[in-house]
This record gives sequence, structure tokens and C-alpha cells, in this order.
Amino acid sequence: MVLEYVGTKYDGWQKQGNTKNTIQGKVESILTQLANKTVEVSGSGRTDKGVHARAQVASFKLDEKLPCDKIKNYLNKYLPLDIKVNSVSFENERFHARLNAKTKTYEYKIANVEKAPVFESKYCAYIEEKLDLNEMAKAAEYFLGKHDFLSFCSNKRYKKSTVREIYYIKIEKNDVISIKICGNGFLHNMVRIIVGTIVEVGMGKLKAEIIPEIFEKKDRQGAGYTMPPHGLTLIDVTY
Amino acid sequence: MVLEYVGTKYDGWQKQGNTKNTIQGKVESILTQLANKTVEVSGSGRTDKGVHARAQVASFKLDEKLPCDKIKNYLNKYLPLDIKVNSVSFENERFHARLNAKTKTYEYKIANVEKAPVFESKYCAYIEEKLDLNEMAKAAEYFLGKHDFLSFCSNKRYKKSTVREIYYIKIEKNDVISIKICGNGFLHNMVRIIVGTIVEVGMGKLKAEIIPEIFEKKDRQGAGYTMPPHGLTLIDVTY
Repeated sequence: MVLEYVGTKYDGWQKQGNTKNTIQGKVESILTQLANKTVEVSGSGRTDKGVHARAQVASFKLDEKLPCDKIKNYLNKYLPLDIKVNSVSFENERFHARLNAKTKTYEYKIANVEKAPVFESKYCAYIEEKLDLNEMAKAAEYFLGKHDFLSFCSNKRYKKSTVREIYYIKIEKNDVISIKICGNGFLHNMVRIIVGTIVEVGMGKLKAEIIPEIFEKKDRQGAGYTMPPHGLTLIDVTY
Repeated sequence: MVLEYVGTKYDGWQKQGNTKNTIQGKVESILTQLANKTVEVSGSGRTDKGVHARAQVASFKLDEKLPCDKIKNYLNKYLPLDIKVNSVSFENERFHARLNAKTKTYEYKIANVEKAPVFESKYCAYIEEKLDLNEMAKAAEYFLGKHDFLSFCSNKRYKKSTVREIYYIKIEKNDVISIKICGNGFLHNMVRIIVGTIVEVGMGKLKAEIIPEIFEKKDRQGAGYTMPPHGLTLIDVTY
């Protein structure tokens, strides 16, 4: 299934212990109700507390072959207004939303005027200080390609590889600044720290040329801010 | 000044007795604080409780000639996140936002899928029943031009003329249905009742051809629903 949600009120996608206030938890409980049997749902990845999605992908298995439309309508009927399923389709039995994901694209939005547009204020961060977009574009270049992103991650102890590949970073400015980042996967808080580092370059606090050194240090301390979650939206997952 | 607001939390534009929870009230209290003297603000028109604006126009007079940017920044600093001033400019001393308004344009948005898009759900009405857009376009035609709109108004006792002129009604469908209505002025709830009548035609509950009779009856009872306020946004005022 492909679903969209406003993350504001939730503790993120992923179920954690007793925390029922997660998007995964909401979707699972409704599918469990439909199937009359515990259903587990796997998302393409976790989105953190407060992060939104326009197209999160999640997979699940049912014993009984129900029509996709019936599943979709049932979910939309019982899900709250801030979570919506946009499509449900049958896939190969071995399909897994997380394990098979090839690319993920996130968008980070920043209002860089004296006040955020009112209809967007819950979906974009706000930075008063004027950002230099040319410098930000220069900074973005350093993140492209394959790197060990340990310095751009909140979790110090990863058992698995912290190497990821970034395919593109697109920075555009209309009413708000939009930073789209596409890669093969992201570590914990990685998008928000990359954006925070690009933003510090845009403010003149960091020089773009220093980014290779930050990578080498393999230390979170060298990188920029972790941007707030409400500016971040998962916009695409490909397989 | 031109301002935008999310109307959800407010009792409409217009100050009413003790109700301080209005957009006009918020703006006046900040201007009064800036000018150190009571400032009155005139909006181009009232927007009802729960109605939004992308471009409401309001005029006010100050004794002292302050720079427009200073006024704008001061307002944006103290106004809540859901009210934002987009521009402030000097006008002829005789300019009055309501008396000089030539046209106003409202947009009404309707989600006509099984569930409203999550990022839009606070700004559009939701109708489950499939609407026939061709029939709605036919219905819209009957409202164009100059008419006595008494049947499409919540207030039975108007002392002044209830004749208004509609210049265009544009119905478009993307993610949501958008109905834009431009006219020289609107009576109380007039946009929401016109849209409600067009919607009833779209549902097959009313025939478009009956609309001239509704006009003739001069009775609110003949017309369609009053659509809910949260789907309505004032998008333009011209002078």
C-alpha cells in the first residue's frame, strides 16, 4: 500500500514497545480488525516523530485474498483524517517494502521569509536569517555519491554499514525553499543533519569546502544542526 | 495591508462585541500597541467563523507616517502563526478596503474521493457521493450576471439591496474540486449556499434548470445546503 500522513500528532512510523501512537500501529490495528487475526505491516523505512509522508510504502500479508479496493476503503474508513491510503495492490509474495526499496526521496521545506506562509506553517521549518542559495547548492554537491555517513547520523553505534549513496539533491526556491534528497537509504536523522549542515553553509557559519573533513572525522559533532522534524516529508520510494 | 490566515481557530474576521477571538481583533490590538493609540482596521469584507483567506485586504490610518516594512514586520512578529501580513502599502487617504472594493474572489474546495488528502483536510470540505462536474458547470451558468440573491443568503432582513453581480464561476478538478467565484460583492453565506446548490445539482438532488425558480421565490428554503466554512478561502480582492 502507498499512504500519506501528517506526522504532527504521531510518535513516528515505527511501533515501539507500548507506544500505540504510531502510524504503523494505527494501520496494523485496523488491518488486524479486518482480517480478524494479527497483521504485521512493514514500512519502507521509519519516519521519525513529527515527520510527514506523501508516499510511504508498506507491505503486509493476509491469509485471505481480499479485493484491494475493499482493503483500501476499509482502512480509509477507520484511519484518522491525518492518515490516508492512496493505493493498495497485490505484489509478489516475496515483496517486502523495506528490504526491496531501491531509492527513497525526502523533501525538506524551509520558510526563509519573516514568517512562514500560514497554510504551510506546520509542514515547513522557519529560518529568519537570509540563506545564500548558491552556497547551499555548493554544499549539496559534497554529499552526492557514495560516502560513509557516520558523521551525519544521530546513532553512534551502527552494527551494519553506514555507507549510503545519494543520487541527487535539488534545491529550489518558490514561496519556501525546497530541498529534495534522493538516495539508496538513510541513517537515523541523516536527512535532517545533511539539511542542517547545508543550512549552516547558507548562513555562512560553515564553509562548503569543509564538508569532506566532516565526513572523514566520522563524528556527529562536526556536522550541522539536526533540523526540526515538521519540515520533513517522505515523498517517494522506488523498487 | 494584504494578509492571509487560517480561519480554523477564529470567530471570523469581524470583531463582535466582546469576542476578541477574531482576526480583525488580533490585528487591531497589535496596531494599537504599535501606535500607542486605538487603531481601527477595516477589512474588505467579513469572512465567517472558520473561513480562511489567502489575500484579505484591510485598511487603517495612523497619525504618524511609519515605514510600511516596519509595520509589516511588527505585525508579523506579534501575530500568531496562523495570521500573516504579506504586504503593507500607503494608499490615498480616502482609500477604504470595504467601500472601494470592486471584485472579490472566493475559492471553495471539495474532496470528492473516499477521503480528503491529509495535507488539505482542514482546508476542504468532504463529499463522499460522486459529483457530476458537467451538471455542476451547467448549474453554475445560472448564477452568472446580475441577480437578486436573497434566496442565497442566510440573513432574511437586509435593509440594503440584495442584488449582486457574479462575473465568473470556474470549476476545476485536480486532487480536489475547486470552485472559484468572482463577483462584485457577496451577501451573508452567499458563496457557501451557491456552492451547496451547485453540489446538490452535482448529486442529482436538484436539477440545474430549477435555479431560476429558486431566484424568483426569494426564499432561502428553495436553495441548497450551506456548505461548511472550512472549505472556503477568500483568494482575491480588486480595487
